[in-house]
Amino acid sequence: MTENNTDFAIEGHGDISVGVSGAGASGDGSASATRITPGNALRPEDIALEVRRGTAKPGEDVADYALRLGDDALVLAQRLGHWISRAPELEEDIALGNIALDQLGHARSFLTYAGAYWGKSEDELAYFRREPEFRSAHLFEQPNGDFAVTIARQFIVSYYQFELYKRLLDSSDATIAAISAKALKEVDYHRDHSAQWVLRLAGGTEESRRRIIQGFKLLWPYVDELFEDDELTARLAETGAGVQPSSLREDFDRLTGEVLAEAELSGDGGLDLDRIPQSLGGGRRGEHSEHLGYVLAEMQVLAREHPGASW
Amino acid sequence: MTENNTDFAIEGHGDISVGVSGAGASGDGSASATRITPGNALRPEDIALEVRRGTAKPGEDVADYALRLGDDALVLAQRLGHWISRAPELEEDIALGNIALDQLGHARSFLTYAGAYWGKSEDELAYFRREPEFRSAHLFEQPNGDFAVTIARQFIVSYYQFELYKRLLDSSDATIAAISAKALKEVDYHRDHSAQWVLRLAGGTEESRRRIIQGFKLLWPYVDELFEDDELTARLAETGAGVQPSSLREDFDRLTGEVLAEAELSGDGGLDLDRIPQSLGGGRRGEHSEHLGYVLAEMQVLAREHPGASW
Repeated sequence: MTENNTDFAIEGHGDISVGVSGAGASGDGSASATRITPGNALRPEDIALEVRRGTAKPGEDVADYALRLGDDALVLAQRLGHWISRAPELEEDIALGNIALDQLGHARSFLTYAGAYWGKSEDELAYFRREPEFRSAHLFEQPNGDFAVTIARQFIVSYYQFELYKRLLDSSDATIAAISAKALKEVDYHRDHSAQWVLRLAGGTEESRRRIIQGFKLLWPYVDELFEDDELTARLAETGAGVQPSSLREDFDRLTGEVLAEAELSGDGGLDLDRIPQSLGGGRRGEHSEHLGYVLAEMQVLAREHPGASW
Repeated sequence: MTENNTDFAIEGHGDISVGVSGAGASGDGSASATRITPGNALRPEDIALEVRRGTAKPGEDVADYALRLGDDALVLAQRLGHWISRAPELEEDIALGNIALDQLGHARSFLTYAGAYWGKSEDELAYFRREPEFRSAHLFEQPNGDFAVTIARQFIVSYYQFELYKRLLDSSDATIAAISAKALKEVDYHRDHSAQWVLRLAGGTEESRRRIIQGFKLLWPYVDELFEDDELTARLAETGAGVQPSSLREDFDRLTGEVLAEAELSGDGGLDLDRIPQSLGGGRRGEHSEHLGYVLAEMQVLAREHPGASW
C-alpha cells in the first residue's frame, strides 16, 4: 500500500502471475511488504496468505460486503458446475465449467477476506452457515432451467459483475480492489461468452429464439434487486470501500441494451423488459427463495457429515 | 512432420502456447504446414483445425484406438464434474473441477481425431452413440462414491494415463503423439494431486484411513482391464501407433506401489491388492456395467432433445 500502480487495463482472459507484476512488494525494503496494492490482481491463495499474515483484515462493514459478493459467486458456481458434461456441445461444457471455476475462485477470495473479521475460514463460511445467513441476491440461486435460461442468467450476471468490479478497482479497501482486479479480467470473458450466445440463440432457429426470450422473461424479475442500495452500501460508498449498486444501473442498461438490440430481441422483438414485473428481492437480508435450500443442501452435505474431518 | 523435436520434457502443469513452440510449422516454406509434429502439444481446437484441413486423418485402427482413449476421458470428466461445489473444501472443488476440464479437453481431441475417420464430429460421437458403441474401460464409469472412492479412482486413472501418454509421445501417428504431449503434462499434475490425497487420507483420522482403504477395495477390481492387450492393440503396437497396455503394467505397479507403501496401506496396512478379485472387463468391446447408462443419459439428454439445433 506504499506504492501505487493504478494503470490497470483489461488485457483479456487469463491467469495473472502475481509475483511478477507486484509493484508494492519490492522497493521498500520490508520483508513483510504486502502484495495488496491497487491494481495488483490477487488469487485466493494470495488473499489467504495476507489474511494469515494479518496484513488483510476487514472491518465489519467491509466483511458484510465481501460476504455478499462471495455468496453471489459461490451460489452461481454451484449452479454452473451442473453443466459439466451436460451442455449441448463439448466445447460449451468446458466454457461453462471454466466460468464456474472462475466464480468459485472469486468466492474463495471474498469469503476468505470476509472470514478474517469473524475468525472463520472460507470453508466454515461456505459449509456451516444456515440459509438465512447467506447474502446472495435471488438471481444467483435461480435454477439452471434449459440452456437458454442459464445463458440469460449468465448474461445478466456478467454485465452486472463487470460494472461492479470495474468500479471496485478504485475501492479504498486495497483487498477488495485486488480481488476485483483479478475477477474483472475473468468476468470480461464471461460477458463476451454470454453475449455471443444471446446473439446465437436469438438469431438461430425459431425454437432457440423462443427459448432465449423465455429465459429472459423468467430471469429479468431478479434484475432490480442487484441494483438496490441499502444502509450498508451507503456507508461503504461514503468511505470509498464500496459502491452504491444503483450507480451501476445506467451502464448496465446501456450495454445489455446494445446486445439485446443487436439480437433484435428488444423493441418489436418480443422482449419488452419494461413490462416484466420485478420480484421483491431480500437476498441481501438473508431472505431467500426455496431454491437456495437445495443448492446449500448439495453443497454442504459432505462437509457437514464429517465436521472437522481431515479431508 | 518434416522436422523432429523429440526433446520433450515434463515441465509441470500449465497451458502450452502452441504457436510458439511449433518446430514443424516454420522452415519448410509451406503455408499449409501442419502443426502436428512430434513433441508439439496440441489443444482440441488445433486438432479440429488439422482435421478440417485434412492434415490429420486416422486409419480405422487408429480411429478405434482414439475412441477408447477419448471415451475413457469423457466418461471420467462427467463423473468428476459432479464434484464442483460438492467437495469437502472449496479449494478441492476447484482442483477436481480443473481435472474434469482437463479430461474433457483430452476427450475432445481424441474424439475429434477419431471422428475424422467416420466423418463425424466430436459432438456426434459424444452425444449420439449408444451405450454398446462406447469403448471406455469399466473403471471410468464407476460411481463417485464418497470422496475417498473418487480419489482412489483418480489415483489409479492418473498413474495409468501417465504411463500411457508418456509412451504415446513416441507414437508413429503424429496426431496421437501431439494429443498425448498435451495430456501428459496435465495428467502429471493429476497424478501428484491424487497421490497427495491418498497420503493425506491414509495418514489422517481413523475414519479417513478406513475410507481410502475401502475406496481401493471397491476400485482395484477394475485395474486389470486397463492393461489387457487385444488384437487392436497388438496391430497398433506393430505399426508403432499404439502400445500394448500390458507393457505399461510394471511401471504402474512400481509407482503406485511406492505411494501405497509410503501411505502404509500395503503390506500389513490393511490393503492386500493381490487378494482383490478382478472383474471381467469388456468395456473395450462395448460391454459395460449398468452405471454407464446413467452417465450417458445425463450427458446426452440435451443434445438428443434437440438434434441439429443451433445450440
